[in-house]
Amino acid sequence: MWTVVRDKYAAEKNLVYETLFTLANGYMSLRGREEFSKVTMKGTYVAGVFDKHLAQVTELVNLPDPLVFKIYLDNEEISLDYSELLKYERKLDMKNGTLNSVYEFKVNGKVLRVESQRFVSRANIHRFGIKYTITPVNFSGKIIVENCIDTATYNGHLDPLNKIQHYFVTKIFDLKPGVLASVKTYDKGHIVSLATSLTGKNRFGENVLMYRKYRNIGQNPQESYTIFLSEGEPVILEKYGVIYTSRDIGLKSEDKEDEVVAKTSCELDSFIVLGLEKELEAHTRHMNDIWQRMDIVIDGDETAQTGIRFNLFHLYACAPDDPRVSIGARGIHGEGYKGHVFWDTEIFMFPFFLYTLPEYAKNLLLYRYNTLDGARRNAQMNGYKGAQFPWESADDGLEVTPKWGEDYLGNPVRIWTGDEEFHINADIAVALVHYHSVTGDDQFMIDYGVELLLETGRFWASRLEYNSEKDRYEIRKVIGPDEFHEHVDNNVYTNYLAKWNMLKAVEYYEWLSQKSPLKFEKLKTLLGLTEEEVHNWKSLAEKIYIPRKEGEKLIEQFEGYFQLEEVEITEWDENGLPKWPKGLDLTKLNETKLIKQPDVVMLMLVLPEEFDEEEMKINYEYYEKRTMHKSSLSPSMYSIMGLKVGDTHNAYKYFMKTLLVDLEDNQGNTNNGFHAASAGGAWQCVVNGFGGMTLGSDKILNFSPWLPENWKSIAFNVNYRGNLLNVSIEKGRITIVSPSELEIRIKGEKRKLIAGKNEFQL
Amino acid sequence: MWTVVRDKYAAEKNLVYETLFTLANGYMSLRGREEFSKVTMKGTYVAGVFDKHLAQVTELVNLPDPLVFKIYLDNEEISLDYSELLKYERKLDMKNGTLNSVYEFKVNGKVLRVESQRFVSRANIHRFGIKYTITPVNFSGKIIVENCIDTATYNGHLDPLNKIQHYFVTKIFDLKPGVLASVKTYDKGHIVSLATSLTGKNRFGENVLMYRKYRNIGQNPQESYTIFLSEGEPVILEKYGVIYTSRDIGLKSEDKEDEVVAKTSCELDSFIVLGLEKELEAHTRHMNDIWQRMDIVIDGDETAQTGIRFNLFHLYACAPDDPRVSIGARGIHGEGYKGHVFWDTEIFMFPFFLYTLPEYAKNLLLYRYNTLDGARRNAQMNGYKGAQFPWESADDGLEVTPKWGEDYLGNPVRIWTGDEEFHINADIAVALVHYHSVTGDDQFMIDYGVELLLETGRFWASRLEYNSEKDRYEIRKVIGPDEFHEHVDNNVYTNYLAKWNMLKAVEYYEWLSQKSPLKFEKLKTLLGLTEEEVHNWKSLAEKIYIPRKEGEKLIEQFEGYFQLEEVEITEWDENGLPKWPKGLDLTKLNETKLIKQPDVVMLMLVLPEEFDEEEMKINYEYYEKRTMHKSSLSPSMYSIMGLKVGDTHNAYKYFMKTLLVDLEDNQGNTNNGFHAASAGGAWQCVVNGFGGMTLGSDKILNFSPWLPENWKSIAFNVNYRGNLLNVSIEKGRITIVSPSELEIRIKGEKRKLIAGKNEFQL
Repeated sequence: MWTVVRDKYAAEKNLVYETLFTLANGYMSLRGREEFSKVTMKGTYVAGVFDKHLAQVTELVNLPDPLVFKIYLDNEEISLDYSELLKYERKLDMKNGTLNSVYEFKVNGKVLRVESQRFVSRANIHRFGIKYTITPVNFSGKIIVENCIDTATYNGHLDPLNKIQHYFVTKIFDLKPGVLASVKTYDKGHIVSLATSLTGKNRFGENVLMYRKYRNIGQNPQESYTIFLSEGEPVILEKYGVIYTSRDIGLKSEDKEDEVVAKTSCELDSFIVLGLEKELEAHTRHMNDIWQRMDIVIDGDETAQTGIRFNLFHLYACAPDDPRVSIGARGIHGEGYKGHVFWDTEIFMFPFFLYTLPEYAKNLLLYRYNTLDGARRNAQMNGYKGAQFPWESADDGLEVTPKWGEDYLGNPVRIWTGDEEFHINADIAVALVHYHSVTGDDQFMIDYGVELLLETGRFWASRLEYNSEKDRYEIRKVIGPDEFHEHVDNNVYTNYLAKWNMLKAVEYYEWLSQKSPLKFEKLKTLLGLTEEEVHNWKSLAEKIYIPRKEGEKLIEQFEGYFQLEEVEITEWDENGLPKWPKGLDLTKLNETKLIKQPDVVMLMLVLPEEFDEEEMKINYEYYEKRTMHKSSLSPSMYSIMGLKVGDTHNAYKYFMKTLLVDLEDNQGNTNNGFHAASAGGAWQCVVNGFGGMTLGSDKILNFSPWLPENWKSIAFNVNYRGNLLNVSIEKGRITIVSPSELEIRIKGEKRKLIAGKNEFQL
Repeated sequence: MWTVVRDKYAAEKNLVYETLFTLANGYMSLRGREEFSKVTMKGTYVAGVFDKHLAQVTELVNLPDPLVFKIYLDNEEISLDYSELLKYERKLDMKNGTLNSVYEFKVNGKVLRVESQRFVSRANIHRFGIKYTITPVNFSGKIIVENCIDTATYNGHLDPLNKIQHYFVTKIFDLKPGVLASVKTYDKGHIVSLATSLTGKNRFGENVLMYRKYRNIGQNPQESYTIFLSEGEPVILEKYGVIYTSRDIGLKSEDKEDEVVAKTSCELDSFIVLGLEKELEAHTRHMNDIWQRMDIVIDGDETAQTGIRFNLFHLYACAPDDPRVSIGARGIHGEGYKGHVFWDTEIFMFPFFLYTLPEYAKNLLLYRYNTLDGARRNAQMNGYKGAQFPWESADDGLEVTPKWGEDYLGNPVRIWTGDEEFHINADIAVALVHYHSVTGDDQFMIDYGVELLLETGRFWASRLEYNSEKDRYEIRKVIGPDEFHEHVDNNVYTNYLAKWNMLKAVEYYEWLSQKSPLKFEKLKTLLGLTEEEVHNWKSLAEKIYIPRKEGEKLIEQFEGYFQLEEVEITEWDENGLPKWPKGLDLTKLNETKLIKQPDVVMLMLVLPEEFDEEEMKINYEYYEKRTMHKSSLSPSMYSIMGLKVGDTHNAYKYFMKTLLVDLEDNQGNTNNGFHAASAGGAWQCVVNGFGGMTLGSDKILNFSPWLPENWKSIAFNVNYRGNLLNVSIEKGRITIVSPSELEIRIKGEKRKLIAGKNEFQL
């Protein structure tokens, strides 16, 4: 199954479908809104166009809406909101990256069929296009069509008290034909220009757009045309759209707006000259090529098949060609988490890119490198050294986590994650080292990677607190991934990874001195680093307290966790997710053992080589009973770990929960954007979970697969050091097509791959 | 029945109800749009604020919408478009001039009851107010409310190809609290400022509006508040609104905008200081007083009772306190006929005002006086003398009839009414003389009336063409009220009234020389008039050809009409209106005897003293068979004439058609405004038709009533020369309460009224 279909229209579902049907190309994103309904949360985003202005924190800007398109029949606007609807179907074609719709409206007895095909081009990221096929089913007569750019969009549709428009209109042009609007963001001064234009042809290829009128209503440029229709004869309208920003042409100064506008209008011209069909072909070809690399086939489970493709489709939609941007927690599909980048990217999404589309994995890491100055500034402002990456990151690496939120009664609640959730720094280090291991991209490490490791290592060194009584280093007052518990001391996830990060910094410091003495010297100068400082990190790291008791397999999440109140989960909702135990005081969650998501399980997945299977099983079982899954990240981790420890039933359940978080809207907030981390988790479930793929500390890939009862087979690709391995797994057999010889492991046993097809019994 | 109720919500009916529920006070008009739906044709108008800009002709400007009010529950906008609706009722309270609504919305199981009461004040015409009572039926929690002015409104919702925004935003203010927007029209430079503000109280009178936020989105200023609700406890929000324009403070120059803004914001302050309740009381008092004067009671027929009140309510809603404006064909209720003033005002609406609210009748005539310069300019530009009033009139008396329209296929069609429908000049003269007869207001005639009669008389003199062969004056190439026939010669309605107009001019010339020798001399100088010119009009008038053959009672509508093709009407639609005969070529209507409305019948109603009853009957019967009623003005005329000639069955049918044209939307275009002429016609049906009231050439009122079977009685008021007569008619009896002695006629027989109650048997 390559499609997600909506075949019944009900306005109250529009916002969720807008997220599901978002089309994006890593640069721009158009939420999948219905042109013919006013029930919408308009969303047009360009990755990296952030602004603060009067908002609480810097956020991704909701830009003008270039999708406005209206059809009038008998001078009445056809509308899903009140017109009679004889037919409705909307379909996301994931294979080709298009959104296809069919409507049949009846107005005064006249039946008008409207088909549309929308795409946001991956072949030329500034372009999007829509093809409308309009057929008067049972009448001849005229219609009027209208093409417009809406410049009254705003952020905060779902947070109405804090609605804000981040831009103002600076220029509006009649392109004769076509319309263009140029806006500028208040604080950062980003200039964004949008242009759209229509062409219209009958089946003889003759122009059908008559009597053009241009006008400007409320700073919204619009053009309209009359079209004369003959019964049964379709006309085809092509809508060409282009977006450019000042970020794309390296401008900072304000007087360069003309250049952005000129670029936009030239691009629109080129697009029209090329033709919509040609662009669509190029886009489709691109999408098909990408699927060749990233697709996962699950034979025997249609829901899972569609679900995994849906997740990969939208993950790829976010993949940036621009090393200055990364992927927000909700993709570029909505305003959830304000477009901010969290650890979600490095820990949940990154592996998918790393193993299938490593060029994007590199960009995600470069984003961190490009925001290093902001991270350094964070450290400085908080009294630390090195680089402290922000818990929430926007465009410059400065911390943008809101300080205050609101409880139900509107009372201010202090948000501590921006102050205390330090583990993001080590998460980035994990991704860096993982990248190096899988790609072998030494040059990247030389140019960027080592600097990042050194600066994060240095941060941790400055963050450690010495406990002289116990002669150990501690990290107090932190928040781990489990955000139910704030201000905790010696969180195992944080401490473990801090130590690991510091040791890796030392390791790569040595590595760099060998690999590139020039860069090594340069870095020492740049960072003001001495041999002594770096070697000291090693001593410090070895004295970091890890709350792991001798002889005990069960690991305490943080100091004192085991002393907390035990609260039993006894009820589950219709999605199989735990309900809040009755009588629980939600303001005192921190006094219980209930957790949002499992720090210990997470740690074991991030650094699997550090733990044995028995430890994994014991901790999995212990923490699973206490997990509320109040993060969409949680189920995927339980699924993968479940497979490692043999809890296959729950593994499948958790996998489906992860997979369908958006398609079933099982967290109830899909309207506000795509759950990108969950999508990355779904990929990990299939490849690392069911496929049982792990990367050993010797950097050799191992496969220990297990398939659910109803699955016939799975197949996926893995890019390992430039070798694109095609892996197919059936019950009892694994087939790997490799482009060259390679050493791998099957269920822990070393095997040699020859170039070509390799089959192994399981 | 004092109410018009909508108790079922269906979005596709919104536009019609917006017209039915329009609230206006002669100065401003707010279409009755639903705040909680996006299916709307927004309409805010101020009488006299016209602009041309890029429109085809000068038109009434659709101004910014100050009604924007939103409620968010769980951050979701409550909406008729998609929220669950447990209860809906909307009611126009005509007695008090308020629009009252009750909604119950259910969002996430929470039931929110919203009641609202809207009024546009007659006590202070710059003010409007809305009281919202918001009750959380089954929950406690918070809502967010939003108050906003939408500055992206436009003209042409029903003519989408020609949409146009006539204004641009010049200033936006945060009134802290409250919002203000000031706009300016493109051509005429009218400045219009709108301001709104909220107050909110709980049942203890304590403020409930918390956490105010102000913002500007797309040049739309908006403020929002959080309100904490307790289950079952209503809060009351009062929305205060004010509109001022540069026309109201006599400004022409552009730099005076600050004054309009200041005036608006001061007025808003005064309004808030007074309080919404007090303003509403004053408004209601005013409305009740007006009903004392204008009400018509029809006992025994609820539909007719509600219908007549509905028509009077909306006629009064248009009544201007400003002598620079008149009433458009669709009131100020929509954009039908672009807000233009036609003969509809003088011939159809005027009698209602003249006999019930003569101060407004005077304003309607003063409007013509104040546009006299434009009318003179029309005459000059067309090669005539005197004043040629425009067929369609806007703000300055210049002709604003569009020259071109479009047929179904979008082909241009020349509109000739602006060139040829001259009778408007005589229609104004008829209203003037009628006004003088009924009010005895000599001063008005001295100051304004005679000048108007002389200038229109002079126009006709210059318009006549001499036929030397027949030694008579003719008026060729005209359009009469029946617009199916263009370029006709010697239209009886036109020729008859032209003659009458000229003779009245001569008569009042003499009258003025007696009444006011000073004004008489001034006028001669002002108009460059000589005794000889005026006396010549008399000779000319007497030689005007009237197509009325000696000995024949049947009058030919225009020369050659009787030679046209006979086409029989054989089918009627569900409203009882004729259908186009099958096979008829609509482009050749002018070659048939079919008429849009009856010129001859019309003439006999306008100048009844000129025709006897037999003539009336013969012509009524002849033309009725050939009338398509393609004007909403037609049925009322047949109703009145039907009663004169004894066709009582059809009279009732035609009356109901007239009465319910909007309530039943029987012309299918009520969405575009109220049928004001039809409303005036309905009043005439009751008073002149069923009440049988006529004014004899001796200026004595006569009553010859006839009531339909099902009517028990009717009662109405008539203001005759300052005497407010209260007339009640039952079958067999007429009762008249008079403030003083007066001579009248009952069924043609002279009777004397004493002061007090007078009963006469019929």
